[in-house]
Amino acid sequence: MTKGPRYTPLVQSLPATVPFVGPEAMERARGRPFRARLGANESVFGPSPRVIEAMAAAARETWKYADPESFDLRAALAAELGVAPTNIAVGGGIDGLLGDLVRLVVSPGDPVVTSAGAYPTFNYHVAGYGGRLVTVPYTGDAEDPEALIAKATETGAKLVYIANPDNPMGSWHPADRIQAMIDAVPDGSLMVLDEAYIEFAPAGTAPAIDPEDERVIRMRTFSKAHGMAGARLGYAIAAPGLVTAFDKVRNHFAMSKVSQIGALAALADTDHLSQVQAAVSVARGRLTEIAGANGLTALPSAANFVAIDCGGDGAFARAVLEELAARDIFVRMPFVAPQNRCIRVSAGTPEMLDLLEHALPEALAAARAG
Amino acid sequence: MTKGPRYTPLVQSLPATVPFVGPEAMERARGRPFRARLGANESVFGPSPRVIEAMAAAARETWKYADPESFDLRAALAAELGVAPTNIAVGGGIDGLLGDLVRLVVSPGDPVVTSAGAYPTFNYHVAGYGGRLVTVPYTGDAEDPEALIAKATETGAKLVYIANPDNPMGSWHPADRIQAMIDAVPDGSLMVLDEAYIEFAPAGTAPAIDPEDERVIRMRTFSKAHGMAGARLGYAIAAPGLVTAFDKVRNHFAMSKVSQIGALAALADTDHLSQVQAAVSVARGRLTEIAGANGLTALPSAANFVAIDCGGDGAFARAVLEELAARDIFVRMPFVAPQNRCIRVSAGTPEMLDLLEHALPEALAAARAG
Repeated sequence: MTKGPRYTPLVQSLPATVPFVGPEAMERARGRPFRARLGANESVFGPSPRVIEAMAAAARETWKYADPESFDLRAALAAELGVAPTNIAVGGGIDGLLGDLVRLVVSPGDPVVTSAGAYPTFNYHVAGYGGRLVTVPYTGDAEDPEALIAKATETGAKLVYIANPDNPMGSWHPADRIQAMIDAVPDGSLMVLDEAYIEFAPAGTAPAIDPEDERVIRMRTFSKAHGMAGARLGYAIAAPGLVTAFDKVRNHFAMSKVSQIGALAALADTDHLSQVQAAVSVARGRLTEIAGANGLTALPSAANFVAIDCGGDGAFARAVLEELAARDIFVRMPFVAPQNRCIRVSAGTPEMLDLLEHALPEALAAARAG
Repeated sequence: MTKGPRYTPLVQSLPATVPFVGPEAMERARGRPFRARLGANESVFGPSPRVIEAMAAAARETWKYADPESFDLRAALAAELGVAPTNIAVGGGIDGLLGDLVRLVVSPGDPVVTSAGAYPTFNYHVAGYGGRLVTVPYTGDAEDPEALIAKATETGAKLVYIANPDNPMGSWHPADRIQAMIDAVPDGSLMVLDEAYIEFAPAGTAPAIDPEDERVIRMRTFSKAHGMAGARLGYAIAAPGLVTAFDKVRNHFAMSKVSQIGALAALADTDHLSQVQAAVSVARGRLTEIAGANGLTALPSAANFVAIDCGGDGAFARAVLEELAARDIFVRMPFVAPQNRCIRVSAGTPEMLDLLEHALPEALAAARAG
């Protein structure tokens, strides 16, 4: 036997790939910063001034561990959502909650259903716990609730994932179709309803929350509409038994105290949320115009980003993305055909979208010439 | 089959207990706050004013995800430690890193060696991944390096854990004894050297870092001497192959941006670190005096806390702890006999230690009368 750690067989089998390369790594490779950071669906409109003030004031409290029960934050969320604090699990962003959830239910070889091209970090966690990922294709650039349920039923999936609104396409389903999906979850399966972008969707997109429904866990976040991606705060809404199960595996003292305090301030500032929602709506319109002016089609979006069909294949969209990056504009794109004919552009400030408007014709020309 | 999630057999077998109840939960149960928060080995002396300033200024950047590679922080740590950034893994406190480490190497049933009464969160993670915990007793209120190695060799342990200085007793071993332990790690085992409290220990406590040594991973933190427990930033120092392995399972976008920026400021302020070290030294002296004035014995400590032998059994120490809590002073105590004859008191401000000095005689009398 050699010196050093003996990794588990599962870990040995895992690839070294990561779900996303951060824009900072790209900037280091490029040797210069991006001027428009429009690739990670962050909220360029920032957190509420009240959040900034609360976090700044809380900095001197950072010598204390945060409350591992996130009592105040769970109470505030419960009041906002009309559920009990026992229906709320708080974690390190939806990413962290997805990891813990997969750990709770997925043994090596267990089937898990998602859409081909949906959120890759979910897939990363499924692979990381040895789950067997089974995918169904998008239908018309949207996740397909009925196909997902059919596949979950067929395979006996432990989890079936859907995001509504969808990332990366921005498509969405009305509440009644999602409720019908919940009602059709097969026994022994749990539906993961990722609502990271729900604050940007039209009224009638989120089904009513049934706090006792054991068939679904809903994930939401402070990273998007609340402009707090760097604070790492997501939450899950589920029946109390599932919330309690997280306590068996989660890292109890994992939350930032400053982030907890900031999140409370974010919930209190509904005006800021409304302003961000309005600014995102304006930005989506502008992105649609910019796309149209270049002969491209922007897909309808209920999120804080727009998928723009570049009119070619994945290689062409990749070339457009790279030409935009060469012009200091960071965007991302879907991973799977035919959705990868698009680039995905986050809602930007007017100044950022000016840069995009200026750069896109050049980038398209360069991609076509390449 | 019933509705809802099917947990893994491992998760079903896990108890609902948590490693630590937070002081906030105790305060809610009591109905009033503690006046002296001396139970979690936080740094009551706070973070550097420069950290507070940097975190406050960074609050408005919280709309951005933090760099998932923690490039700047790893570079700064590497420069400080005289290693390469590829030797540094950053995570959500030592707790988070321990969880990921256990996941990397422990399959269900794999043996892991630690001391009975050592850090319970490590045990929590080992149990959480189905490991088989094997313990050796403390010797003279200190962890026993030779006994730990002997047990690791005997059982073929995947991991063998030691904290130097030790928590909860504050005892420590000189560098050469720890180096001898590293040199004796059996093939196929990995030694976890938890150095959370190393900044409080005398010179000559930490062995030199060999950045290529695959037999040991060292854990350090911003939670203690840097006064940033609420920021959730720990780091591991290890051979590059092990650092890379973390990338296979960790939650890549888990770090708080504000915390990352604060940690950089903490590393730059060596004056503050010196001041905290001096204040902790004074507080340990004062705790020793307070113990002596009450006929109790304070154990020597190389950490930012002191274990005080209450002169009875675990039940008596528990009674003293509860009587102190009734007097608004939060302390903790070891879990295992005979170390649980002690209470563990963190280094406090002079004002907090005044409160303790006033309360301890009453608490002892009440515990003796009870």
